[in-house]
Amino acid sequence: MKKVTFYHAGCPVCISAEQQVLEALDTKRFDIEVVHLGDDSSRIKEAEESGVKSVPALLLDGAVFHINFGASMNDLK
Amino acid sequence: MKKVTFYHAGCPVCISAEQQVLEALDTKRFDIEVVHLGDDSSRIKEAEESGVKSVPALLLDGAVFHINFGASMNDLK
Repeated sequence: MKKVTFYHAGCPVCISAEQQVLEALDTKRFDIEVVHLGDDSSRIKEAEESGVKSVPALLLDGAVFHINFGASMNDLK
Repeated sequence: MKKVTFYHAGCPVCISAEQQVLEALDTKRFDIEVVHLGDDSSRIKEAEESGVKSVPALLLDGAVFHINFGASMNDLK
């Protein structure tokens, strides 16, 4: 299984992406972890080091895909 | 099957999103169409009317998800 991490912050844009994009992924091939950076700020550093600049973002096999724009990482600190 | 349309323009950011995000979708539940707006400019109007502002973008069940930023729609005209 490949790992997918979905970083979000509970914003409306984040929820839309979670409900639609994340829901469309193939869970037979991908192990999906959802991280709420507002609730768990200890993961912000790891997200930034992976290249996440805003949420919602999908970290897929090491590559970052920013989906629309909900909030910047600086807004979450 | 739900319909997914992936709009792109052949740019490096587009190709990355196509190879990774699109590849991760569940093709058992989603019927995926890939539209290259550089090659097929007749589809630009439809994409804009759906809310696509830049490529690569995923139109999923009527909702638009812009993935990173490759090129704006105006650059494709």
